[in-house]
Amino acid sequence: SSDKYFESYEDLNIHHQMLNDTSRTVAYKNAIFNMKSSFVDKIVMDVGAGTGILSIFSAQAGAKKIYAIEASNLANLISQVAEENNVKDKIEIIKKPVEDINSNDIQKVDIIVSEWMGFYLVHEGMLNSVIIARDKFLKPNGLMFPSIAKIYAAPCQLPSYNDFWDDICGVSMKCIAQNYRQTKSLKPEILYVPKKDILVEDKLLIWLDLNNTTLEELNSLGGEQTVLVCSKNGKYQGFCIWFDVEFPDGSLLSTSSKVEPTHWKQTVIVLPHSIHLNKKDPVAFTLNINKSSSNPRWYNIIFTMLDATEVPHDIPCDCYMSRCIITKTYMENQGKEI
Amino acid sequence: SSDKYFESYEDLNIHHQMLNDTSRTVAYKNAIFNMKSSFVDKIVMDVGAGTGILSIFSAQAGAKKIYAIEASNLANLISQVAEENNVKDKIEIIKKPVEDINSNDIQKVDIIVSEWMGFYLVHEGMLNSVIIARDKFLKPNGLMFPSIAKIYAAPCQLPSYNDFWDDICGVSMKCIAQNYRQTKSLKPEILYVPKKDILVEDKLLIWLDLNNTTLEELNSLGGEQTVLVCSKNGKYQGFCIWFDVEFPDGSLLSTSSKVEPTHWKQTVIVLPHSIHLNKKDPVAFTLNINKSSSNPRWYNIIFTMLDATEVPHDIPCDCYMSRCIITKTYMENQGKEI
Repeated sequence: SSDKYFESYEDLNIHHQMLNDTSRTVAYKNAIFNMKSSFVDKIVMDVGAGTGILSIFSAQAGAKKIYAIEASNLANLISQVAEENNVKDKIEIIKKPVEDINSNDIQKVDIIVSEWMGFYLVHEGMLNSVIIARDKFLKPNGLMFPSIAKIYAAPCQLPSYNDFWDDICGVSMKCIAQNYRQTKSLKPEILYVPKKDILVEDKLLIWLDLNNTTLEELNSLGGEQTVLVCSKNGKYQGFCIWFDVEFPDGSLLSTSSKVEPTHWKQTVIVLPHSIHLNKKDPVAFTLNINKSSSNPRWYNIIFTMLDATEVPHDIPCDCYMSRCIITKTYMENQGKEI
Repeated sequence: SSDKYFESYEDLNIHHQMLNDTSRTVAYKNAIFNMKSSFVDKIVMDVGAGTGILSIFSAQAGAKKIYAIEASNLANLISQVAEENNVKDKIEIIKKPVEDINSNDIQKVDIIVSEWMGFYLVHEGMLNSVIIARDKFLKPNGLMFPSIAKIYAAPCQLPSYNDFWDDICGVSMKCIAQNYRQTKSLKPEILYVPKKDILVEDKLLIWLDLNNTTLEELNSLGGEQTVLVCSKNGKYQGFCIWFDVEFPDGSLLSTSSKVEPTHWKQTVIVLPHSIHLNKKDPVAFTLNINKSSSNPRWYNIIFTMLDATEVPHDIPCDCYMSRCIITKTYMENQGKEI
C-alpha cells in the first residue's frame, strides 16, 4: 500500500546510504549551484523531500520559497534540518503525497527538484508523482531537476555467478552454480558490474524528456528490437541495465560501470547459461519495462533474446555479418568520394 | 522455529557470501591440510555441512569417512558436490539436525569440523549443536576444528553515526544524527570498523575451550568487570566486539579490524552520545552475552558502562590514575632489583 511505501522511507538507514552516495548528492548540489541565477528569488518544489537536502540546496542557491513535499514522518525532521541550516523561513513542509495537494492551495512553481530514481531508473514508480506534480504545479517553461533520463543496457560477464563456482579453494561446485543461476534468473539482480565485464559500448535504449513525458509513456518503456555489437571477446552471462539523468545545466548523474559506483549499482538479468561471444558478434534482443498491474510501484522487466540474423541492424553496423560489412564499406567509400 | 532456521540456509546467496569469504574458507582449508596426518584414514563429522566444502577438504586431506550432517535441503546438493569432486564414496550425508541422530546409528568420530560461528561468535546458537555432537560422537582425545574461540572488545569511534551528519555537502543534519543513533542503539550493529577507529589494544573478554566447554557455560558468557586503557585519543561512540577461533595446528581465523575483512564484519553497540577519551584514560564496563529465553538461537547483549574509579584495574595498569601509576612504578622497580 501507499502507506507502507512512505513508511519504508522513515528508516534512516536508507537516507544515510543515499546521503553517503557522494556521486548522487554532489551531482544535485552542483547542478543546482551551477544554475544559481535560475534559483534566485524563485519558487521551488522538492517532490519526496526525504531529509530535505535538495530543499536546503535550493535555499542556499537563493530560492525565495521551497515547498518540501514529504508524505512520510520524515516531514517532521525536515523542519529541524531547515532550522539547523538557518533557512526555516524559506521552506514550507507539506506532509502529503503530492497527488493529494490541491492546486489552489499553493503557488505555481518555477522549478521542480526531485530525486525520484529507483533501481533501473523506474523501480518504485516515483517518477509518476513527479510528472503529476509537473502537470499540476510547474509554470510554463519551468525547470525540471533532473530534466532528462536515459536507460542503457549491455551484455555482461558475471564471474561470481559462473566461474566462481568452478574452483573454490580447490573444490568444484558447478552443480551449485546451476542452481544458483536458476534462482537468480527469476528476478533482476542489483549488483556492481565492473567495467571490464561489460561487453559492448554503451547503447541508449530509452530516453525520457522529463519536461514532456506523459504518464501513459511510463506504463511501458522500451520494446524495440535492438542489435548491439561486441567490443571485445567475453562470456555473455547477464544483461546489464543502468541509467543516467541529466540536469538543465547539462551535467550528468550516471550509474554506469564506467564511473564511481552509486548506491543504485547496476541491474542485471542473469542468464541461465554462459554464451561465448567474440568481438564484432551481434547480440539482438528486446527489453520491455512494463508497469506491473498488481502494484503500480513495481515494473516487470521482460528481456527477450532474438536471432541477430533475423532483425534489422543499425546502419552502419560494426558486426561481422556480410550485409553489414558491405553496407559499412559502401558508406565509407561514399564518404571518401565527397 | 528450527525448521525456519534450517530453511534460511537453503538460500544460496548466503553460501556464496560465505564461500567467497576467502579468509574463512582458506583458514579452514589450511588448518585441515596442515594436520593431514591427523586426517588420514580417520572418521570425520562435519556439523552443519552446508554446501559440503569442509567435508570435501577432509576427504582431500585423506579422511576415510566423513559424516556430512545437514538438516536443510542443501543436503541433496552435497552428494552432487561430492560426486563432482570424486569423493562420493567417502561422504555419508545425513539429512537431520545432529541432535536427532541416534548415537548407535553411526560410528564414533576422530574429528569434528564445523563452521558454526555467527555474528559476535554466538548468534544463531549453532555452537550448542556442535557441543552436543562432540559429547555424543567424538572419541576421547578427538580433535575439534576449531578448538578454541575467543571474544574481544574495545571502545571505538563511529564517524558515520556521528561526524558524518555534521556536514553533508554543506548541509548540517545533527538533528537527524541524534534520531539515527537512537534507532541504532536498540540492537547490535554489524559493520566494518576500520583499525584506526579502535581506541584500545585488543582485550580478550571470553575464552572457550571447545574440547571442554559445556552447554551450561553457553547460556551466559562474560559478565566480569573489565577496565581497558585507551591507546590513543579519540571519541568513544561505540563498543566493538569481534572474535577469533583457533585450530588444533595453532592457526587462527580472526575477525578483528586488524586483518582482512570477513563476512562477519564486527559487531558494535552504538552509544547515544560521543565521549571524548584521551590516551591512558581507563574505560570500565561489563559485557554479558546471554542466551535469550524466547529464542535459543538468539542472544541478548547487555553492555553496562561502569565508573572506572570504582572497579579494580589490571595489575599493572597503564591508565593515568595515581594508584595505577604507583603500582606500575613499584613493579617496574622491583623488576630492576632482581
